[in-house]
Amino acid sequence: MSAEDTNDESALSSVKTFLSFFDSHKKQLLEDYFTFLRFKSISTESAYKQEVRRCMTWLEAYIGQLGFTTEIWEGPEHPVLFAHWLHAGPDKPTVLIYNHYDVQPVDPLELWESPPFEPEIRGGEVYARGAEDNKGQCFYVLSALQALFNRDGKLPLNVKLCIEGEEEAGSVTINSLLPSKKEPLRADYLLVVDLGFPAADIPAVTLGCRGIVSVSLELRGSKTDLHSGEHGGVAYNPNHALIEMLAKLHDCAGRVLLPGFYDDVLEASAEDKNVLYLDFNAAKYEAAFGAKPVGGERNYAPLESAWLRPTLEINGIGGGYTGEGFKTVIPARAIAKLSCRLVPNQDPEKIAASLQKFLNENCPPGIELMIKTNPGSRAFRTRPDSKVVQAAAQAFSEVCGVASKYILCGGSIPVTGALGKTAGAETVLLGYGLADDNIHAPNEHFGVDRLRKGLATMAVLLEKLAKR
Amino acid sequence: MSAEDTNDESALSSVKTFLSFFDSHKKQLLEDYFTFLRFKSISTESAYKQEVRRCMTWLEAYIGQLGFTTEIWEGPEHPVLFAHWLHAGPDKPTVLIYNHYDVQPVDPLELWESPPFEPEIRGGEVYARGAEDNKGQCFYVLSALQALFNRDGKLPLNVKLCIEGEEEAGSVTINSLLPSKKEPLRADYLLVVDLGFPAADIPAVTLGCRGIVSVSLELRGSKTDLHSGEHGGVAYNPNHALIEMLAKLHDCAGRVLLPGFYDDVLEASAEDKNVLYLDFNAAKYEAAFGAKPVGGERNYAPLESAWLRPTLEINGIGGGYTGEGFKTVIPARAIAKLSCRLVPNQDPEKIAASLQKFLNENCPPGIELMIKTNPGSRAFRTRPDSKVVQAAAQAFSEVCGVASKYILCGGSIPVTGALGKTAGAETVLLGYGLADDNIHAPNEHFGVDRLRKGLATMAVLLEKLAKR
Repeated sequence: MSAEDTNDESALSSVKTFLSFFDSHKKQLLEDYFTFLRFKSISTESAYKQEVRRCMTWLEAYIGQLGFTTEIWEGPEHPVLFAHWLHAGPDKPTVLIYNHYDVQPVDPLELWESPPFEPEIRGGEVYARGAEDNKGQCFYVLSALQALFNRDGKLPLNVKLCIEGEEEAGSVTINSLLPSKKEPLRADYLLVVDLGFPAADIPAVTLGCRGIVSVSLELRGSKTDLHSGEHGGVAYNPNHALIEMLAKLHDCAGRVLLPGFYDDVLEASAEDKNVLYLDFNAAKYEAAFGAKPVGGERNYAPLESAWLRPTLEINGIGGGYTGEGFKTVIPARAIAKLSCRLVPNQDPEKIAASLQKFLNENCPPGIELMIKTNPGSRAFRTRPDSKVVQAAAQAFSEVCGVASKYILCGGSIPVTGALGKTAGAETVLLGYGLADDNIHAPNEHFGVDRLRKGLATMAVLLEKLAKR
Repeated sequence: MSAEDTNDESALSSVKTFLSFFDSHKKQLLEDYFTFLRFKSISTESAYKQEVRRCMTWLEAYIGQLGFTTEIWEGPEHPVLFAHWLHAGPDKPTVLIYNHYDVQPVDPLELWESPPFEPEIRGGEVYARGAEDNKGQCFYVLSALQALFNRDGKLPLNVKLCIEGEEEAGSVTINSLLPSKKEPLRADYLLVVDLGFPAADIPAVTLGCRGIVSVSLELRGSKTDLHSGEHGGVAYNPNHALIEMLAKLHDCAGRVLLPGFYDDVLEASAEDKNVLYLDFNAAKYEAAFGAKPVGGERNYAPLESAWLRPTLEINGIGGGYTGEGFKTVIPARAIAKLSCRLVPNQDPEKIAASLQKFLNENCPPGIELMIKTNPGSRAFRTRPDSKVVQAAAQAFSEVCGVASKYILCGGSIPVTGALGKTAGAETVLLGYGLADDNIHAPNEHFGVDRLRKGLATMAVLLEKLAKR
């Protein structure tokens, strides 16, 4: 860090300027953000394929207007939007910023207090699918670029934007493109802006995230649903088969029983843990989510379990009649969706293979089992002492007025590792998300104040990275 | 039995007359049957409450036109339709015939080849919800009465009809009314016309059915669905809790592990089994249903398991995301629907209490469990040597031209036992259902030939019962 970075007065003046930009452009910025949120860019459901592309087309035009050159990278699924502004010159560093424009499904729709694609402000929070994840976080990045152009007529360093449309669906397209996009993606720093804080008043830089691998199961027992009186005791109920099989995946202390599941787990050192902000308030957690933090392996603290240990979660089960009243059937089929969150050095393919083998071996007679494995990703870790991590921590501290902490993320941003490697960049994960933003759930929301601070943080961070 | 009963020629002449009546009135009969089928009289779903009543009102008018006096018995839920024709005189016996006008839900709707409430004939079979269960079986009873009136201008004995609207929903109303309806229901014989044959060419009288008790579970873990990355390893997943609890209900040999479940089971004697037609063809079963008959307790043959042993079936499970693609949630709640089929002398209330206790004891920390128990019924058995059973067997033999067998029913007709006791009647269970009629499933169907034979069988049976 140069001497300028420690000049509090100059830093504070920058922060002020960027916050003022938000305040004076608030109406237009919110209008544009709402337009972005109205696109139903659900990447996991094929019915929304065109809507995902419409969202990307709007975003491309928006970024073009900022002064960026845009490219659409086509692949097997949803396109990647790439953009660059490289007029800072070859002596200036290059930063690559990653976001995604796709969103999660909205089901169960009936639990939303306002329609998921009709953004609405209540109590200073914007409610909509994607309000935080990741349209909100993407939008303040773009606003920061606008603020810098507005103040200086240019950016302080070379900037590349990589905004994918498939983060919620396994990042197939971007992963297939990376080998051929080494040159355009080359950068000194990679900012993955899809993360958050442990609490609203505790800014934090994220040093890594868990990997993921997921499988979908279908169990078939008969051609059609059967009467459970006539056939009960004769046909094998696929619900029973599913329950028998899935029950074998955990022991009563929350440990995963899948053979080899923990074999490659790199245990976190005391030093690793020392850097991390592992404080956890069970009462606050329960008040926020209505859930007790008792779900992980019993011999690990909640955040150790969420950050440093792998999990196997059953994300969905379904079979037979679950409506009002009763229907005495033996269902023809039962289904389940399972995902594992992985830590270093677990291999998603190895875990998926073990899961597939285990389920096949434990499928009872009379039941046909079909397993579909979705593409996975490894866990990712960055170095806490790297320039980009330190700069991000300083930017947060300056904008928020308190020292930034270091955390990990229990979730997964599948492309992080491969993207950083392709770009040859030092990576940092950051963002203004909060655990109670209801991402992936009904009533997702993001604060207007966080759009404002996010803008300032990103602009300040880019200024810091511009300095060699 | 009098000598006349063994007069083959007279018997055959009766059969011929009744079959001819069907043939000459086929168009009108099918039209009326289709009208009956078009009512969406789903008793378990409150949205159809008015439609259930509309169905009953139509049926009341139809039976009134036959010459019966009708009464509507109101109770807590759907009304019972009662009707009587008592002009045969006090020296003639009285028969009470039981049917139901309500039907099962139609979900999953997408698997129906034609809409469930738009009856359609394909290959001699009428496809519609209720085509067999129980509108078809009810309709040929009414047609038999029509045929007798048509031939003789009167009925050979006193006839009472009791047609409930809640058989598929636990028979709450009729059970609540029975204590106050002892007088109107009094009869010498009770015919429960809701059963079937083991195969199309094997007529059979049913000597009993299993009882039932069912419960609905809801498990709540958090206020809203949670992100399985952020919260995986922290919150307890209700899907996991459900699976853990339900997996404890069976061992790997299909035996129910609920404490005390088998305590009151009256083991069937060799004599009991000797009377029964226990033949079972595994290959035919698999061809018909696409399921292997491997689902019951491993040390019992399929029909022993379905008729003489109790079961615990998981009729429905649901929790989290089960749509297309993937959604990495920890669901806020998971649900299940369980039902037990009971044999003599199991007590539904005792079983429900044991189930409730067991589930509460096995519910993991952090999960809130709600259990709703639905009204149950005991198993029912009738004597194979009673007059009404013998007369039914003879009627089947005469109409079908082969000797009738004796079977049991794995399903439940909750009101049978209590209704027979209230009426003070000798009971028989009979009907023209077949195991592959898809009752309680998509594409339910019933044969036009069975409507025809059903008419003749009921008319012949009433003639036989008229003789002291």
